[in-house]
Formats: sequence, C-alpha cells, structure tokens
Amino acid sequence: MTYQLYYWTGIQGRGEFVRLALEDASADYVDVARVDGDDAMQPFLNGDRTGARPFAPPFLVSGDLVVAQVANILHFLGPRLDLVPEGEAARLQALQLQLTIADLVTEIHDSHHPIASAAYYEDQKDAAKRRASDLRTNRLPKFLGYFEQVVDRGNGHALGTHSYVDLSLFQLIRGLDYAYPKAMQALVPKVPQLRKLEARIAARPNIATYLASERRLAFNTQGIFRQYPELDGGIDG
Amino acid sequence: MTYQLYYWTGIQGRGEFVRLALEDASADYVDVARVDGDDAMQPFLNGDRTGARPFAPPFLVSGDLVVAQVANILHFLGPRLDLVPEGEAARLQALQLQLTIADLVTEIHDSHHPIASAAYYEDQKDAAKRRASDLRTNRLPKFLGYFEQVVDRGNGHALGTHSYVDLSLFQLIRGLDYAYPKAMQALVPKVPQLRKLEARIAARPNIATYLASERRLAFNTQGIFRQYPELDGGIDG
Repeated sequence: MTYQLYYWTGIQGRGEFVRLALEDASADYVDVARVDGDDAMQPFLNGDRTGARPFAPPFLVSGDLVVAQVANILHFLGPRLDLVPEGEAARLQALQLQLTIADLVTEIHDSHHPIASAAYYEDQKDAAKRRASDLRTNRLPKFLGYFEQVVDRGNGHALGTHSYVDLSLFQLIRGLDYAYPKAMQALVPKVPQLRKLEARIAARPNIATYLASERRLAFNTQGIFRQYPELDGGIDG
Repeated sequence: MTYQLYYWTGIQGRGEFVRLALEDASADYVDVARVDGDDAMQPFLNGDRTGARPFAPPFLVSGDLVVAQVANILHFLGPRLDLVPEGEAARLQALQLQLTIADLVTEIHDSHHPIASAAYYEDQKDAAKRRASDLRTNRLPKFLGYFEQVVDRGNGHALGTHSYVDLSLFQLIRGLDYAYPKAMQALVPKVPQLRKLEARIAARPNIATYLASERRLAFNTQGIFRQYPELDGGIDG
C-alpha cells in the first residue's frame, strides 16, 4: 500500500505531523505536491475527485479513501502503522491528545496571525505582540504542563508506549524551540519529561535518518511555527 | 448505560454539540454540572480521577472511559447512538467534517476574543472588530460554502443520511444566526441546503421537544456564539 500525502510545498506545517508518522514507520508514501507541485491538490480541494472533499491540506489518499484533518489522518494511520496501542480506550485517548495538540498548534499559528490568516503579519503585528504575550504567559504553561503530566504518568510516553502522539509532541517541542526560544528556556524546569521525550524521539533510527535528510525542511517564517524575535520573551507576570 | 456529560453550566458552549446528539437519540444521560455544580468537573480536570485526563470540558464519562474533545466524544457516541453510517470510510468522513466544524467554532470564538480567551472582550474590542470583519468576509463564506456543497452532494445530509454531523451543522447555523444575523442574511442565497437542513433538524421530534425544554439554554454573551452588534455587518469587499 502506497500512501499519497498532499501538503503545501516549502513548509513543514501541519503536514509534518503526518510525515513524522510515515517516516517513523518506514511507510511507503509519496509526498505528492513535492513531486508534482501544489496544483496537484486543487482537484481534491475543489471537490472534483471522488471521496470525501478536504477543506484544506494536509490530506492523505489511500486507495479510494481521502482522509483530511491531521488528527483524523493519524487516527486512520495509527493501527496500520503500529503507532497506537490496541483497543478502543487507547485509540480514543490518542485522538483526544492529538486534538489537544491541534488546538495548541492553532493557538501558536494565531500568535502571529491573530486577525486574519490571509493578511500579512506586518499588518497585524501589534495584535500579534499581545496575543503572543498571552500565549507565552498563560497558554503555553497550561498546555505544556498538561502534556508533561500525561507523559510523566505514561512513563515517558503519552500512552505508556510509543505512539503517533509522541511523534507529534516531539514536533510541537521542536517547533516551539524554534519560534519561542526564550519562553521555552523559561519553561525548561517545568517540562523535564517532554524534554526527555523529544530527545528519545530524535534518536529513533528512522527519525534520525529523516531529520538528516533533505525531506526534512528547515523551520521558516512561512510555516506555523515562526521565529519573530519581537514575539518571544519570558513568561510574563 | 447512563452517560455522564460534564460541561460548564450557564452556556450552551461546546457542550451543546454533544447534548444535541444525546437528545436526538433519547440517550440516558446526566448533565452532571447542572445537577452538582461546575466544581464536579475539577477532579477530572486536575487529573485526580482514573481514565484519560481531559484538558478542558466538555467530557463524557461512560463506565471506566473518560472521553474529551467534542469530535472525539461524537466519534465515540456515533455508532452507539446510531448517529453515523456504518463502515470506516463513513466514520472517518464524519470525524473529518466534525473537525472542520470545530475549526470554524474556534474561529467564531476568536472573533470576539482574538487576543486572549481569559481577558475581557472590552479589552480586545478593536482587534475583535478587525477579526470579525475577516470572519464575515472571508472565513464564513469559505467554510459555509464548503459545507453547502457537502450537504448538496449528500442529498440534504452531510453523510447522505442523518448523522451527528447534521446535528452539529444545525447548531452552527443557529449560533451564527444569533451572533451574526446581518452576515447570515447576506449569505442566505448561497446556502439554501444548509437552511433546509437546519429546518429539518429543528422538526425532528426529539430535537423539537428538547429545544422547547428548559434544558436548552438560550444563546447568551457568555458562550461561544456572542451577539455583539458592533462585530456584525454585511460581507465586506
């Protein structure tokens, strides 16, 4: 089974959460837009193809299925790639955690685009400074404190054993390290388990190979995690 | 099986998407905080109970399971309440659509709280005006146009037959009618199928009974959908 992943070229973005799962499992997949260009996504986005119409990338094509929304894609791939424990309770818990990661990812995106996702950052910079301050001071400690407890109780894993959720937590930490280095430095003492998890995932052979490959794009200021020094800082208050 | 739903008292909020599914199916459930107060949620939110720790309400308790995140709860309830077609493809499509509804709900929330969810509306009113203008002009037409096509292709249903997604689309339309009456009026010609769906759901006997009951709280300016006339208007541009 070859999976076709569709996502914007040029950024890691939300597609990276799916990519990490496919890479970790050595799945057979094609990153279609990187081969054929972003236009290859349009027939799906326009609703001109059979299968569920995606609202936005990323989406995954597997045979007749078109699966969109990161958490939904990982819910679909989890059992197939052996990246989620067996049983309904574990699968629901994985989906719940992935959705909570997705909520934080949206908040991180909105910290540089609080007014309009299609408008320039420069035209919403003042609002971004205020929202980023709230993210650093209130939201990041709350979300990361939650994930820290989850991983602490799972003996270093979100679900007690390796899963796609761990891979997504790795990506979340790496992205935040890039975008908010000062805030993350201030949070170091509070999230030791997440740090350990990040190091453990980076050392997995397939992930290490992937991170060193050309397939892993560098973080940049076109993606979700953006390094704008004026938005970074300590944990205020 | 009695389900225990936990959600903030005093508002419809995100809990309402779950409530509508339980009501439509005549499920046996207790709306716990409305009986015992909001404090009843704290042991779960603090991680003092067994089962998956929720990050935030709503969450549903069913036997040993604690299930959080609206889309995850509905994914769990769907087959049990006969509110999703059988088969993996349909369940994935339902989850995908529900997640897209969730994305729009977050954008609607952020239209009155673009800077900080814990801060007063009055302290972010100027940013809210800009974000609400973008919501009305760009985001609502895009999202509702997408759902309109989905429902048109499903012969009046998101999934070709009645499902929890239709119930959530009903709630979305009702909430937008309350919060953004002018914008929704401007969109009338573009979403005839969503209007028909809304009327059909309102006429379902269990839903009609529920909407007329004291269990259905009125929309108010504490919830996700808020009627702030200064944020409403036509479709600009």
